[in-house]
Amino acid sequence: MSAGDTQKGRLQLGFVGLGRMGLNMVRRMQEAGVDCVVFDTHIDARKEAASHGATAADSIQDLVAKLSAPRAVWLMLPTAVVDAVLDQLTPLLSAGDTVIDGGNSHYVEDLRRAEALGKHKLMYVDVGVSGGVWGRERGYCQMIGGPEIAYKRLEPAFAALAPGIEAAPRSESRTGDPTPAEKGYLYCGPNGAGHFVKMVHNGIEYGLMAAYAEGLNVLQNANAGKQQRTADAETAPLEHPERYQYDFPIGDVVELWRRGSVIGSWLLDLTAIEMSRDATLKEYTGRVSDSGEGRWTAQAAIDEGVPVPILTAALFGRFTSQGNDLYANKVMSAMRHAFGGHQEVKPDKKG
Amino acid sequence: MSAGDTQKGRLQLGFVGLGRMGLNMVRRMQEAGVDCVVFDTHIDARKEAASHGATAADSIQDLVAKLSAPRAVWLMLPTAVVDAVLDQLTPLLSAGDTVIDGGNSHYVEDLRRAEALGKHKLMYVDVGVSGGVWGRERGYCQMIGGPEIAYKRLEPAFAALAPGIEAAPRSESRTGDPTPAEKGYLYCGPNGAGHFVKMVHNGIEYGLMAAYAEGLNVLQNANAGKQQRTADAETAPLEHPERYQYDFPIGDVVELWRRGSVIGSWLLDLTAIEMSRDATLKEYTGRVSDSGEGRWTAQAAIDEGVPVPILTAALFGRFTSQGNDLYANKVMSAMRHAFGGHQEVKPDKKG
Amino acid sequence: MSAGDTQKGRLQLGFVGLGRMGLNMVRRMQEAGVDCVVFDTHIDARKEAASHGATAADSIQDLVAKLSAPRAVWLMLPTAVVDAVLDQLTPLLSAGDTVIDGGNSHYVEDLRRAEALGKHKLMYVDVGVSGGVWGRERGYCQMIGGPEIAYKRLEPAFAALAPGIEAAPRSESRTGDPTPAEKGYLYCGPNGAGHFVKMVHNGIEYGLMAAYAEGLNVLQNANAGKQQRTADAETAPLEHPERYQYDFPIGDVVELWRRGSVIGSWLLDLTAIEMSRDATLKEYTGRVSDSGEGRWTAQAAIDEGVPVPILTAALFGRFTSQGNDLYANKVMSAMRHAFGGHQEVKPDKKG
Amino acid sequence: MSAGDTQKGRLQLGFVGLGRMGLNMVRRMQEAGVDCVVFDTHIDARKEAASHGATAADSIQDLVAKLSAPRAVWLMLPTAVVDAVLDQLTPLLSAGDTVIDGGNSHYVEDLRRAEALGKHKLMYVDVGVSGGVWGRERGYCQMIGGPEIAYKRLEPAFAALAPGIEAAPRSESRTGDPTPAEKGYLYCGPNGAGHFVKMVHNGIEYGLMAAYAEGLNVLQNANAGKQQRTADAETAPLEHPERYQYDFPIGDVVELWRRGSVIGSWLLDLTAIEMSRDATLKEYTGRVSDSGEGRWTAQAAIDEGVPVPILTAALFGRFTSQGNDLYANKVMSAMRHAFGGHQEVKPDKKG
Repeated sequence: MSAGDTQKGRLQLGFVGLGRMGLNMVRRMQEAGVDCVVFDTHIDARKEAASHGATAADSIQDLVAKLSAPRAVWLMLPTAVVDAVLDQLTPLLSAGDTVIDGGNSHYVEDLRRAEALGKHKLMYVDVGVSGGVWGRERGYCQMIGGPEIAYKRLEPAFAALAPGIEAAPRSESRTGDPTPAEKGYLYCGPNGAGHFVKMVHNGIEYGLMAAYAEGLNVLQNANAGKQQRTADAETAPLEHPERYQYDFPIGDVVELWRRGSVIGSWLLDLTAIEMSRDATLKEYTGRVSDSGEGRWTAQAAIDEGVPVPILTAALFGRFTSQGNDLYANKVMSAMRHAFGGHQEVKPDKKG
Repeated sequence: MSAGDTQKGRLQLGFVGLGRMGLNMVRRMQEAGVDCVVFDTHIDARKEAASHGATAADSIQDLVAKLSAPRAVWLMLPTAVVDAVLDQLTPLLSAGDTVIDGGNSHYVEDLRRAEALGKHKLMYVDVGVSGGVWGRERGYCQMIGGPEIAYKRLEPAFAALAPGIEAAPRSESRTGDPTPAEKGYLYCGPNGAGHFVKMVHNGIEYGLMAAYAEGLNVLQNANAGKQQRTADAETAPLEHPERYQYDFPIGDVVELWRRGSVIGSWLLDLTAIEMSRDATLKEYTGRVSDSGEGRWTAQAAIDEGVPVPILTAALFGRFTSQGNDLYANKVMSAMRHAFGGHQEVKPDKKG
Repeated sequence: MSAGDTQKGRLQLGFVGLGRMGLNMVRRMQEAGVDCVVFDTHIDARKEAASHGATAADSIQDLVAKLSAPRAVWLMLPTAVVDAVLDQLTPLLSAGDTVIDGGNSHYVEDLRRAEALGKHKLMYVDVGVSGGVWGRERGYCQMIGGPEIAYKRLEPAFAALAPGIEAAPRSESRTGDPTPAEKGYLYCGPNGAGHFVKMVHNGIEYGLMAAYAEGLNVLQNANAGKQQRTADAETAPLEHPERYQYDFPIGDVVELWRRGSVIGSWLLDLTAIEMSRDATLKEYTGRVSDSGEGRWTAQAAIDEGVPVPILTAALFGRFTSQGNDLYANKVMSAMRHAFGGHQEVKPDKKG
Repeated sequence: MSAGDTQKGRLQLGFVGLGRMGLNMVRRMQEAGVDCVVFDTHIDARKEAASHGATAADSIQDLVAKLSAPRAVWLMLPTAVVDAVLDQLTPLLSAGDTVIDGGNSHYVEDLRRAEALGKHKLMYVDVGVSGGVWGRERGYCQMIGGPEIAYKRLEPAFAALAPGIEAAPRSESRTGDPTPAEKGYLYCGPNGAGHFVKMVHNGIEYGLMAAYAEGLNVLQNANAGKQQRTADAETAPLEHPERYQYDFPIGDVVELWRRGSVIGSWLLDLTAIEMSRDATLKEYTGRVSDSGEGRWTAQAAIDEGVPVPILTAALFGRFTSQGNDLYANKVMSAMRHAFGGHQEVKPDKKG
């Protein structure tokens, strides 16, 4: 029996960061028999966690004090805050304790932190967690990196958070006892491996989203032939307007594709929900944020020498939606003016 | 009661083309109560269809003779053959009959054919069908274009082929009687609309596939730091080899992502099946074919003035996998030789 | 001596379309000894051409009447007008006459027109002309397609318009009498060949422009580390602000690269001129038009199965500058809202 | 008079690294009146430099000894060697001395080195040098970063290396005394600025090269309609073979575009030279190396949030030419097999 287990053999886990995601994770673990000792700077969040059976701590110190060694403390924090909390936490821990970073850290940060904590004989585990606001209900997909011994000790927590084997039909050729991957968590390798896999996961996500978005945009503009297009030397004419006379019911198309088609996916399910409310999406302006992983994926690919044209095109589409192509476009307008005397066309009203 | 229905009110349908897909479609319709009169140049295929309850015809003439007016004949043929069969079929039909093209025709061909058949007072319906070799079991997602009256008459066939509402959880905000889209078939608009939506569907499919493929390639090469990279003036050095020391269990990662992650999809399910057999994919050479729709999607987008960088990058990746970037690369090598005296590096052994 | 030559052996040429470019071309030909009979619907343009020695005609009929057979009539017209003028001109011409289209027609139109004119025993020559507003001074680069016999007869006109061999240093390995290509005009092949080569020329031009524009945009934003970047969960933080503290003198950089660098070009020369006035380019909004050739190049490449990721990225950048990525971006925002509860960030003020 | 000047007011410069490029630079400086004290591990190179008037040193120590303070030592070395030489050189120098790195270092390395040298009161200047094997004759375009005082002192060396104002026609609006940018060298800002601008320069170069290469590939394949294309379900048919019947004289097209066209450039001049020998480029295999700057440009753009789809597409094209898309392509083939039962087509013979 490992010292971090409570009397009844239950895993005990410190948990710092009770935001929307953290709170749901604690609930899911409590329900599955993991004893969580929790802390957050917001008292209300602590109270809510306690109402689900967790033990609330008043401070990081208190949290550490309430855990028996070897301790394990899971951080579920904004990336920018992790190092500050680690600075506070590290001196309170003892050799053999483990810190888990379940946020969206760059895996390069993991390498640095694991080395720093190693000097204190602390173990560091990085976990990429996917599931978003739906995880409470669907479970969390977890990609795990770090010392295998720490992974093993924490496995009950991972299993509690994971969706479980029934979340998807079993793959052909997979028989016997389900592996962790089939339940929704996976030990991916040494430190950084968890966040590396999560980084690529998000990179792929950008690409998938953009593929759907582009296709739907082609459908949305399939009535281009109905519009009077400006016929000046600055604008390419539409050679066959009769081929672009369609007003597609896009919300229904998205709904349709969820059943029996090759492109069904959870992202498409979500799009169908959004579109069932308003397929014109008029409440959105189309400014698409990016939160780091897409950038890191591209940079890792470039380091590796691996071509990722789709993933970067998706990333750059986001940059452009944020207006960052402006100076480049001005340069091209200036060039056109210089060689052909072309004046810019006044922007159409769109939106 | 429409004249094309049999005595018991069942829809009667002529069906030409009993390939792998056509045969499965006939079986599914027979089971659902659609009476199919079938023809294929291969006698064995006709016999097999008959063994599932269909009525086999000896020729196109025979097939038409066995149908009561107003007739409906569904063609499930390679694109290149459709026009030849139509030439044969058209004179045999009567005003008010309908021809359905369920193959992968370009929607521009639909416009031409619908006009030609219209001169004979025949109706033309274009149906984009997704489902591949899995459709027998999962049902077929159908995107339909043409005269709405013809669509209505044929609706029992579409419903029989479709996966049905239980194929996916119902979207929030969707209540009341399920719409056709929720069952897996949709009337998309006038002629060409069905194949247009199917075209874009496949365009998206290319993008999705490439997004996964690129991401998995980044994982596959995450051990780049372990390899001795050539250190010459022609090769960029890896600045941080210590960051690329991972040997990821890619088959397990794919399996993992099927549960609880944002990027779960049917394509990922299939990838997991393939990888459960051999995650190195050594039996594949990596020559990726393209079959038309990806090209047409890009060309339609360009006509519309809609940016589709992801979809074209995916298409061009396939062209490149076929070796078609060769001369461009030679040009770049020649330029590098010309301005810098650079000699080409001998290709590494890969594969 | 060919019948289209005047007494002194000079080539005689009908010329329709005296816009900015046409007028300059007529001047250049007159100066080189080609006798131009000109027409334009604007009387002033006719007068100006006459002041440079051309013979002004009052109408297309008059123009044809003033030419001796075998006639040659050069059209320098907006693409959309060419067919209308051809309809008027064709019945006035005789077997053996030639029509030249020097505008920006799609080469597919050339194939159609050449066939139609061929039925009247007229020859058709397609000429892609590059040179823009600078051609009067620099000469015009001409890409020529059509019957070789017509090309030969018209060669004095092409030579008159071309820049001449001194426009660029002679290439190594080129010796002996200069070829037409070395003077600035080239017979590229049968009909359509001229506009095909010009189409690709413009496709390349889009790519070159965008390459410079992107690079200059990276320089322009090299002070990103000086700005306070929003630090919320929706925005990727800049990991190393200390690396992005540069305020580059972009106008000077462009000027610099014109001398001795690998990326010197005429486009860069023009950019330097624009930037010497105002390197911030504040008079431009960044809406970049496209005029057909970039689209046609992409579509031809797709037909050929040739990957052109750079050329299409450049084209799509223009579409995006015109606002045509809007619906795609809304789709992505909706997806992000659906899976992560992400709210859109308010757009920054830019520009 | 600065102490580094020789009696007659001439600038004295230490120069380490007499490779192809370094040797030519020394010759050019000697001819312009800069006194070079040179060292290279290859004695022959030292001897050759001496034959052009330089003072040869036997070792780094000897080189430093031969310079009068404040010394300036220019390193022209492979990137991987710079730090080792700096380790040897630094202790030999005195406060106020300057080290110049004229190689292709990453500007982030400059920031690190400048800080390290600053602790010894040494100045560091980073110079991006473009010109390749042609610089001896054409001069070198120089992008300079570091302390402005060091730049000023070294200006005679930069001026000696630069092409001079006559290398390009003067830009409109530029009057009065020529600025350094107009002569071919530019002070771009504090440390790293020189290599940053050079990095982006090379990033642009990749994009320009790929734009030409793609366009020429479209021309090269314009005879696609003449070939019998495999007509199976795995291969998209060519809808209009009659439109792709051209055999273009590509070498002549390249030659042509050098005169009067919008896309004339030095890269095109070089391509014309290569193609005047053999337009089929059969001696090249098409494996295109990349040497760091293209990668760094992409990574900087991503850090800045600036979209660079052209520059990355060009970079990824090189990665792909090196075979690094292999696993991604296998993944796509596996997916196609899984959903559609598609077998891979055997590769055609190409090349």
